Amino acid sequence: MIRADARRLLAAVASGSVTVDQALHQLATAPTAALLDATLDLHRGVRQGFPEVVLAAGKTPDQVVAAALAILQTGDGVLITRAEADVRARLLVAIPDAEVNATARTVFVAPRSATEPTGAPVVVITAGTSDLPVADEAVVTASAHGARVVRIVDVGVAGLHRLAPHLEALGEAGAVIVVAGMDGALASVIGGIVATPVIAVPTSTGYGASFGGISALLAMLNSCAAGVTVVNIDNGFGAGVAAARIVTAASRRG
Amino acid sequence: MIRADARRLLAAVASGSVTVDQALHQLATAPTAALLDATLDLHRGVRQGFPEVVLAAGKTPDQVVAAALAILQTGDGVLITRAEADVRARLLVAIPDAEVNATARTVFVAPRSATEPTGAPVVVITAGTSDLPVADEAVVTASAHGARVVRIVDVGVAGLHRLAPHLEALGEAGAVIVVAGMDGALASVIGGIVATPVIAVPTSTGYGASFGGISALLAMLNSCAAGVTVVNIDNGFGAGVAAARIVTAASRRG
Amino acid sequence: MIRADARRLLAAVASGSVTVDQALHQLATAPTAALLDATLDLHRGVRQGFPEVVLAAGKTPDQVVAAALAILQTGDGVLITRAEADVRARLLVAIPDAEVNATARTVFVAPRSATEPTGAPVVVITAGTSDLPVADEAVVTASAHGARVVRIVDVGVAGLHRLAPHLEALGEAGAVIVVAGMDGALASVIGGIVATPVIAVPTSTGYGASFGGISALLAMLNSCAAGVTVVNIDNGFGAGVAAARIVTAASRRG
Amino acid sequence: MIRADARRLLAAVASGSVTVDQALHQLATAPTAALLDATLDLHRGVRQGFPEVVLAAGKTPDQVVAAALAILQTGDGVLITRAEADVRARLLVAIPDAEVNATARTVFVAPRSATEPTGAPVVVITAGTSDLPVADEAVVTASAHGARVVRIVDVGVAGLHRLAPHLEALGEAGAVIVVAGMDGALASVIGGIVATPVIAVPTSTGYGASFGGISALLAMLNSCAAGVTVVNIDNGFGAGVAAARIVTAASRRG
Amino acid sequence: MIRADARRLLAAVASGSVTVDQALHQLATAPTAALLDATLDLHRGVRQGFPEVVLAAGKTPDQVVAAALAILQTGDGVLITRAEADVRARLLVAIPDAEVNATARTVFVAPRSATEPTGAPVVVITAGTSDLPVADEAVVTASAHGARVVRIVDVGVAGLHRLAPHLEALGEAGAVIVVAGMDGALASVIGGIVATPVIAVPTSTGYGASFGGISALLAMLNSCAAGVTVVNIDNGFGAGVAAARIVTAASRRG
Amino acid sequence: MIRADARRLLAAVASGSVTVDQALHQLATAPTAALLDATLDLHRGVRQGFPEVVLAAGKTPDQVVAAALAILQTGDGVLITRAEADVRARLLVAIPDAEVNATARTVFVAPRSATEPTGAPVVVITAGTSDLPVADEAVVTASAHGARVVRIVDVGVAGLHRLAPHLEALGEAGAVIVVAGMDGALASVIGGIVATPVIAVPTSTGYGASFGGISALLAMLNSCAAGVTVVNIDNGFGAGVAAARIVTAASRRG
Amino acid sequence: MIRADARRLLAAVASGSVTVDQALHQLATAPTAALLDATLDLHRGVRQGFPEVVLAAGKTPDQVVAAALAILQTGDGVLITRAEADVRARLLVAIPDAEVNATARTVFVAPRSATEPTGAPVVVITAGTSDLPVADEAVVTASAHGARVVRIVDVGVAGLHRLAPHLEALGEAGAVIVVAGMDGALASVIGGIVATPVIAVPTSTGYGASFGGISALLAMLNSCAAGVTVVNIDNGFGAGVAAARIVTAASRRG
Amino acid sequence: MIRADARRLLAAVASGSVTVDQALHQLATAPTAALLDATLDLHRGVRQGFPEVVLAAGKTPDQVVAAALAILQTGDGVLITRAEADVRARLLVAIPDAEVNATARTVFVAPRSATEPTGAPVVVITAGTSDLPVADEAVVTASAHGARVVRIVDVGVAGLHRLAPHLEALGEAGAVIVVAGMDGALASVIGGIVATPVIAVPTSTGYGASFGGISALLAMLNSCAAGVTVVNIDNGFGAGVAAARIVTAASRRG
Repeated sequence: MIRADARRLLAAVASGSVTVDQALHQLATAPTAALLDATLDLHRGVRQGFPEVVLAAGKTPDQVVAAALAILQTGDGVLITRAEADVRARLLVAIPDAEVNATARTVFVAPRSATEPTGAPVVVITAGTSDLPVADEAVVTASAHGARVVRIVDVGVAGLHRLAPHLEALGEAGAVIVVAGMDGALASVIGGIVATPVIAVPTSTGYGASFGGISALLAMLNSCAAGVTVVNIDNGFGAGVAAARIVTAASRRG
Repeated sequence: MIRADARRLLAAVASGSVTVDQALHQLATAPTAALLDATLDLHRGVRQGFPEVVLAAGKTPDQVVAAALAILQTGDGVLITRAEADVRARLLVAIPDAEVNATARTVFVAPRSATEPTGAPVVVITAGTSDLPVADEAVVTASAHGARVVRIVDVGVAGLHRLAPHLEALGEAGAVIVVAGMDGALASVIGGIVATPVIAVPTSTGYGASFGGISALLAMLNSCAAGVTVVNIDNGFGAGVAAARIVTAASRRG
Repeated sequence: MIRADARRLLAAVASGSVTVDQALHQLATAPTAALLDATLDLHRGVRQGFPEVVLAAGKTPDQVVAAALAILQTGDGVLITRAEADVRARLLVAIPDAEVNATARTVFVAPRSATEPTGAPVVVITAGTSDLPVADEAVVTASAHGARVVRIVDVGVAGLHRLAPHLEALGEAGAVIVVAGMDGALASVIGGIVATPVIAVPTSTGYGASFGGISALLAMLNSCAAGVTVVNIDNGFGAGVAAARIVTAASRRG
Repeated sequence: MIRADARRLLAAVASGSVTVDQALHQLATAPTAALLDATLDLHRGVRQGFPEVVLAAGKTPDQVVAAALAILQTGDGVLITRAEADVRARLLVAIPDAEVNATARTVFVAPRSATEPTGAPVVVITAGTSDLPVADEAVVTASAHGARVVRIVDVGVAGLHRLAPHLEALGEAGAVIVVAGMDGALASVIGGIVATPVIAVPTSTGYGASFGGISALLAMLNSCAAGVTVVNIDNGFGAGVAAARIVTAASRRG
Repeated sequence: MIRADARRLLAAVASGSVTVDQALHQLATAPTAALLDATLDLHRGVRQGFPEVVLAAGKTPDQVVAAALAILQTGDGVLITRAEADVRARLLVAIPDAEVNATARTVFVAPRSATEPTGAPVVVITAGTSDLPVADEAVVTASAHGARVVRIVDVGVAGLHRLAPHLEALGEAGAVIVVAGMDGALASVIGGIVATPVIAVPTSTGYGASFGGISALLAMLNSCAAGVTVVNIDNGFGAGVAAARIVTAASRRG
Repeated sequence: MIRADARRLLAAVASGSVTVDQALHQLATAPTAALLDATLDLHRGVRQGFPEVVLAAGKTPDQVVAAALAILQTGDGVLITRAEADVRARLLVAIPDAEVNATARTVFVAPRSATEPTGAPVVVITAGTSDLPVADEAVVTASAHGARVVRIVDVGVAGLHRLAPHLEALGEAGAVIVVAGMDGALASVIGGIVATPVIAVPTSTGYGASFGGISALLAMLNSCAAGVTVVNIDNGFGAGVAAARIVTAASRRG
Repeated sequence: MIRADARRLLAAVASGSVTVDQALHQLATAPTAALLDATLDLHRGVRQGFPEVVLAAGKTPDQVVAAALAILQTGDGVLITRAEADVRARLLVAIPDAEVNATARTVFVAPRSATEPTGAPVVVITAGTSDLPVADEAVVTASAHGARVVRIVDVGVAGLHRLAPHLEALGEAGAVIVVAGMDGALASVIGGIVATPVIAVPTSTGYGASFGGISALLAMLNSCAAGVTVVNIDNGFGAGVAAARIVTAASRRG
Repeated sequence: MIRADARRLLAAVASGSVTVDQALHQLATAPTAALLDATLDLHRGVRQGFPEVVLAAGKTPDQVVAAALAILQTGDGVLITRAEADVRARLLVAIPDAEVNATARTVFVAPRSATEPTGAPVVVITAGTSDLPVADEAVVTASAHGARVVRIVDVGVAGLHRLAPHLEALGEAGAVIVVAGMDGALASVIGGIVATPVIAVPTSTGYGASFGGISALLAMLNSCAAGVTVVNIDNGFGAGVAAARIVTAASRRG
C-alpha cells in the first residue's frame, strides 16, 4: 500500500503531470497537518485503517481540542483517550454528538463509513473490579477499531469457579484481552484454556510490592502459557488496537 | 471445546455407561502422563491445536528425552526449545529423524497430520545479526504451529533505507514478529508502517545499560506505535506461537 | 471438600435427580453473585472458612457498599479493609451495627455463627509506632477469622531490652506476626527466639532508601532466622489471614 | 522457655550454688561452641526444637565439615543444605551414614530421638520440572524437622486439569508449599482452593524478565488469594522449616 | 585560561605587587559571592563563557531572586530555569524587563555584550506535543548561550513520513537535540540520518512502564545509531548548553 | 556498661536484697515507659549518652507530644526531628521554651546537664542551596549530641574554587559531614582532601535520573576516596549522631 | 544530502533515463549488501562520513569476518570493535595489514582517502587504570573518524592535584571524553573547568553498589556541571564517534 | 596542611628562590608519579596519613606490581587489596617480605616509621562465617592504618545470646565494624547497644533476594539504631580506613 502510493507518485513524475519539486513537496507535506504544537498524521486512516488517536494525557485541553477537530475533518472519526473530566467537558462543547465514557475516560466519534462489526468477538476479561477503567478503555478502543466486544468482569483466580459461566464465550473469541493487576495470574490461566491469541494488560491496581503494575507486568511476560503477549501497564488502548487488528484482519481475509 | 468434553463425560455418567468414580478418575488422570519428574499435558493438542512444547533449559537431558518421547507417542509431533548441543545430540539418538536447528536451538518432529500451511505469512524481522538465535526460534516455532514464515535479517533503524526492499513482504504479512535488542526502535518503526498485528521480541544483545534486554523490553512496551504487543526477553518461542495463532485462526475462519 | 461437592453433584446426575444441563448450570453459576461491576465468590465461606473480604482501595464507595451488602446476605459476616473515612461513613449508613476501626481502616460484621476463639493466640508485635495501622489491620483480620490476638507495640531492636516483658507472651503464641519497616530487623530477632511460625509484614514507613518498604521486605525475605515467611508491604490483612489459618487449623485438629 | 532458663540460673545464684561470675560466664559462653571461623548456636535444638542447620554455600568444605561434626556431637542430628558435589563427598567421608540427596543438595543425619512423624502432612507441589531442586530441599527439610511430606510435581497453571488428581491430597494437607518460577501463578490458584496455610517459594527458573526469580517473587507477594506467605527465592529450606513448624505445632497441641 | 589566571597572580606575587597572604585571599574569595544560603560562582562567565544558571526547583522564591540579582550585577545576564508561576511572578517584579517563557518555565536576561548568533543552527526536534516544555527549555537555553535555534515539533516514528519536510533543516544543523519520551526511538532514527552530533533528551511523558522517563533514557543510551549522547530525563537545559557549546566552539574556531 | 548493670543486679540477687522475681521484673520493665502506642527506651541516655530521639514523621501529633513529654521528664532533654509546621506548633504549646528550627524541621530541649562543647568541630558542608534542610538537621542533631558545629553552604564541584576559603576549616575538623544530591561528587572531593572521617549524606534534590537521591547515594557508596561512610538519603539526623559520636568520643578520651 | 540523492533520482526518472521500476529498485537495494546473516549499510560512508562499524560482540567469527571484508571492498576502510582475541586472530588472517589494539579490542583499516587530522584535539581522560580498555576504544574510534587525540590516564578526584599538569591540554581540547567508573565524579570536575563539550563514559569497573557501572552512569547523568552528555556504560566507541563529529564538524566549517 | 604547602610555595616565589614557571611546574607534577598506565598520588601519605592503596581488581598483574613498587619507594609502606592468588604470587616475587593474607586477599608492607598502635581498639564483628573475607580485609586495612583490632566471628541475630561473651569488648571499642549479609540485622542490634561509632559493611553473601548484598545494604542504610554509617557492599577496605581514622584521630588528639 505504501509502495503503491510511491509508485503512483513516481509514475506521475515520469508522465510529467507532477514536477520533481512538486513530488518532493507532496512527499514531505501532504499527509500531515501542521498545527502549532502538533504534526498530525492524517494519513494513518489510509495506511493503517483507523485515524490517529489523541492521547489527552500530557496535553493541554486546547491542544487536545485542536487535534481532535483537525482529525475529525478527515471524515474518519476520532478517538480521544485518557481524557479527564475537564477535557471531556471541553470536547463535548466542541463536538456535541461525541460518545463519552467516563470510566474508560474516552471520547469517541465514529467514522462516517463505519459498518456493523463482523467476525469473531474480542473478549475483554478482568480479574477485579478495580481493573474496570483499563478494561473499558480496551472495550471502547476495540469497538472503535471495528471489533465486536464481549466484557466479563471480576473473575480472578482466587475463585476460579467464577470463570465457569464464561468458558463458552472464551471458546468463541477471536482474541482475548485479559486485564489484571497484582499477581496477573488470570492471564496464565486463560492462556492455558483458549486456543486464540491472548493479550495481557497489567494494571497498576494493588499496593506495596505491586509497584504500580510491575508485578503483574513481569508475571504476564513470564506466563507459563504459550502465546500470551503483553502491552504496557494500564494500556487498555494498545490492547484494544491489537485485538481489533487480529479479528478484523481475520474477517477481512475470510 | 472444554465444555464439550465435560458435557460428553456428564452425559456418559447420566447414561450409566460411566460410573461416578470412573468419571472422577477420568477427569483427574486421563489427559496427563505422569513421568517421574513431570506431569505432561497430553491433552494440549486437542485443547489448543499443538502439543505441549518441551523447554529444555533447566531440565536434565534425561528429563528432556523422557518428556519428548512421551509426547511423541501421541502422534501430534513434538517441539523441544532451548536445547543446547548436548541435549540436541541426546535427542537425535532417541529420535533420529528429528529436524535440528542449531542456531534456533530447537529439535522438531512434525505431527503426522501436518498439512501445508496456508493463509497470510508470518514475517520475522531482526534489527541485527546478533538477534538471529531468537528470531530463528520464532521461525521454527511458528512453522511448527502451522504458519508460513518469511525471514528478514539485519535492518535496524540506524540505516532505515535497508527496510525498503522488504516493504512489500511486510504489507502482505498476516502478523509481524520484530526481534531487536538495545533500543528496540525497530518495533516502533514497523508498528507505524503495517496494519497487521505486530509482536515485539526484545533480545538480550548489547551491553551496559541494555541490562540484558530490559532496555529493549521497556522501549517496546512504550512503543509510540499503537497495537504493538510484547513477549519476554529472548522469547522467540512465545512470539512464534502467538503469531501462528493469529494467522491460523484467520485462515481457519476464512 | 471441593471433591466432595463434585462427587455429590455427579451422583445427583447419575441418579437422574439433576440433568446434565442443570449440572453444568450449577457448576457455572451457583456460588457467585453477579453484580454490575463484580462477581462475588459467595462460596468462599464454605470452601475456606471465611467469606470473601472486600478490599475497598481502588473501588468506588458504591461498589464497596454493594459488595458488602451482597456478602452480608449470606449470613457469614463481612470484612472490609483499606476503607478510608468516606467509605467507612457510607458503610456505617448501610450497616449501622458494623464495627469500625479507624486506625486499621476496617469495617467488620461478625458471622452469625461466630463462637469464642480458642487455641493459642496470635501475637502481633510492631517495631515502631508508625507501624500501627498495618498491625491493627492484622489484629482485626485475625480476630475476624477466629483467632485470639495479643498486641505488643514499639519494641524495635534499637532498644532490645524493651522486648523483655513480652518474652512470656511470645513463648505462648501459636503464631507471631512481626510488623516492621526500615531495616525490618525485628523479624530476625523474633524468629531467632520463638519456635512457632513467624509471619513478617514489611511496612512502608521510613524515607529515602526505605523505598516505600522495599528495604524491610528484602531484609525479611533474607532473614537469617529460619522459618520466617513474608507477606506484601503493608499487608496486615494477608498476615492476619495466614496467622488465623495456622492457629485455627491447630485448634480444629486438637 | 528462655525465661525458664533464666529463672533457673537466677535461682541458683540466689541459693549460692552459682556465683555471680559463674552466672555471667554461663550466660555468655554455655550454649555456643567457638570454632575458629564460626560460633555455633548449640542451644537451638532446645530453644526451637531443631539444631542449627549448616548452609554450605559460602563456606569452605573444611568449615562445613567442622560445623557439621560439632553440631552432630550434641546428639540432635544435623542438616547441611546447599552442599555441592565436592562438599557432599567430604561430608560422606566424615559422616559415612549420612543421608545424601543430590537433587536437593542436602546431607542429613537424623536426631537420635527422632520419632515417627504424626499429624497432617505438608504437601510440596511444583509448577514445573525445573523447580525440583528447590522443592526437594523443602521436602528434606520439612521431614528433618518432623513433618510427614507429600510431593506433587509439574502441575503448572498452563494445564490446570493436571491439578485434578491431587485435590484430595491438598484438602488433607496441614500446610502446602507451592514451588514455582516464572509467573508464580500456581500459588494464587492453590491459595484460592485450600483452607490451610500456603507457603509460596519463588524459584529462579526461567529467563529474561524472570530476573532470576523476581517475577515469581513479586507475583506471589501480590497473590490475590488471601493468606499466602512467601519466602526468599529458591529458599526451599525456609519453606520447609515454616511448614514443619505449622504442622508439628498443631500436632503438639492436639 | 585557568592557567593564565594563575600565572598572572603568581607573577604579581613575584613582582611584589601582591603579597602572599593577599594572593591566598584572592584565590579563595574573589570569584564567589557569599549570600546567606548560596555561594555563587561569579567567575563562570569568564571561565566557561556564560554565567552560572539558577535552577529554581528546590529553592525558595527568596533564594532564587537573591541569586538572580547577584548574578545580574556582573553584567553577564542571567538565566533561571524550572521557575514555576509564583517564582516567575516574583522575578518579574524584581527584574521587570526579563524575558519569561511559561512553557519552558524560564526567565532570562541577555548579557549586555550579547551579539547576533552565527554559525550552524541547533535543531531541537520533538517526538510529541507532550515533550514541548522540555524542548522549549532547550531552545531558550541554547539561545541564551549564543546559538541559533530551529524548532521542529511532533514527528515521532509512528508516522515517519512527518519527518520528510524537515530533512533539509536537519542536514544543515550544527547539532541536533532530540526530545522524546516513551520508546525514545526518534533519537535512533535521527542519529542514523544526520552526520552532526545528536544529543538525546529523554522525557518523563508516558505512563506505566515508561517509569517517568527511564524507558526512553535506556533506549537512548542503547541507540543503535553511533554518536548519540544523552542527558538526564527532562534536562532540556543541559542539552541546550551542550549543543550551544558545540556550535559556538565551531564558529569560534571557524 | 551493660555488663556492669547486669553484674549489679545479679549481685543484689545474690545478697538477697533483690528476689529472683524482682530481678526478672526489673530486667523486663524498668528502663521502658509504656505509653498507649509506644514503648519508650528511657534508658538510652544512660546507655548511649543521649536520650531517644522522636522521629515525628509517621506519627500523629498526639503521639509525638506524648512521647516528647515522657522523655523530657527524665531530665535529659529531648530532640524531635521531621516535625512539620503543625507538629512544631503543637510542641511549642506543650513545651514553650523549646528551640524550633523551621528549615531543619526540629524541636529541641537541651539536657539540664548540658555543658559547653569541646574538642574538634564537626564541619557540615553542602553542595547546593537545596541541600540546606538536610544539612541543618545534621547541624541541630550534632549540636544536641554535644558537638561544636561549623556550617559551609553551596560549594559544589562545578565551581571547585568556591571550596578554597574553607580549606582551613576542613583541616581542623574532627569529622566532616558532606551533604549533596544529584552526582554526590562533593563527597569524593572532600574525602580526597581531609584526613578526618567523612560522613556523606545523599539528598533527594534533583530530578529525573536522580531518582530521589539514589544517584547521589550510589555515587557516595562508590566514592573513590577511601574512608567515606554513608547514611540514608536525607538522613541529616543519622549523620549528626555519627559525627557527634566521633568527636565527643575523641574529646572524652583526650 | 539525503534529499540531494532523492532529488537526483527523481530527476532521472523525470528525464526518462531511469524507469519507475528501476527507481524503486534502486531505492530499495542499492546502498545495502545482503550477506546471509546481515544487511550491511554500505552507504553510511557517504551519508555520515564513516563506514558502518562492526560490533563483534554477539556475532560469530565467521559473521564478523564476512561483514568486515564486505565493508572493506567499498574502499572506505573498516573498524571492528569488541573483538576478543580469537576474533582478532581470525581478522588478521583475512586482513593482514589491519591495525590491532588488544587493550581497546579493536581491529582497524584506514580509509584509502584518509588525510592527516586537523583541528582541535579530542582529549580522552580516565579516572583510573581499570578504565583503560574503554578509554582506548574511544581513542581508536575517534582517531579512525578523523580526530586528533590526546590521552590522559588515572587522574581521579581522590587526588585532584594529579589533574594540574593537564589543565593546559584540557583548555585546548575541542571535546573532552571523561572515562570513569564507581562515583563518576571526574566528569563533574572536568565539566566545571572546561568550556568545550564534555562526553562522559561510565565504566563497569568497581564492585558491589557500582552495579556494573550504573552508579557512575547515574552520577554522570546528574552532573552538577552543565553541558555534560553521557553515553552507555563502557561505550568508548560511541563517545569516540560523538567527539570526532564535534571536532571534525568544527574543522570542516572553519 | 594543603594550605601550608601552597603558602610555602608562594613564599618561595615571593622570595625569588622559585620562578613562576617553576612554581607552576611544581604544582602540576611534583606529588605524582606518572607510570605508563597510572598516575600515582605519592603525596597521599603526607596529606592523609597513609599512602595510596592499590586496588588490584581490574588491573593486570603487571600494573599492580608496578604501582606497588613505585609506592614502596616512598618508604611509607604499601597495601594491595583484592589481590587474587596469581597477583599475590607475583607480588611475593617482587616484594619477598610482604605479609600476605589469603582470606583477606591482601598484600601488605608496613611503613618504615610504623609504631605500636595505641588508643581504643577497632572491633570487627561478623554475622556469619561467609562474611570472613570482607571482615579480614577490614582487619588488615585498619591495622595497616595504625589501629589496634579485635575480631569477633559468627554472632548473627538468629542466636543473639552468642553475642553475650563479647559485650565487654564492644563496650571498650573506639569504633565497631559490623560485617553482615542477608538481612544485615546485626548492624541495628550492635548500633542499639554501643555508644561508639558503628560502621556497617553489607556483604554479598546469601542468594535470591539478597541480590548480591543489596538487601543488607538497604537494611543497614535504614537501621533503626541512630548513628550507624554504611560503606559499599563487600568494602572491608573502606570500613577499615574509616574506623582507623576515628580511633587514630582520637588518640592523636588525646
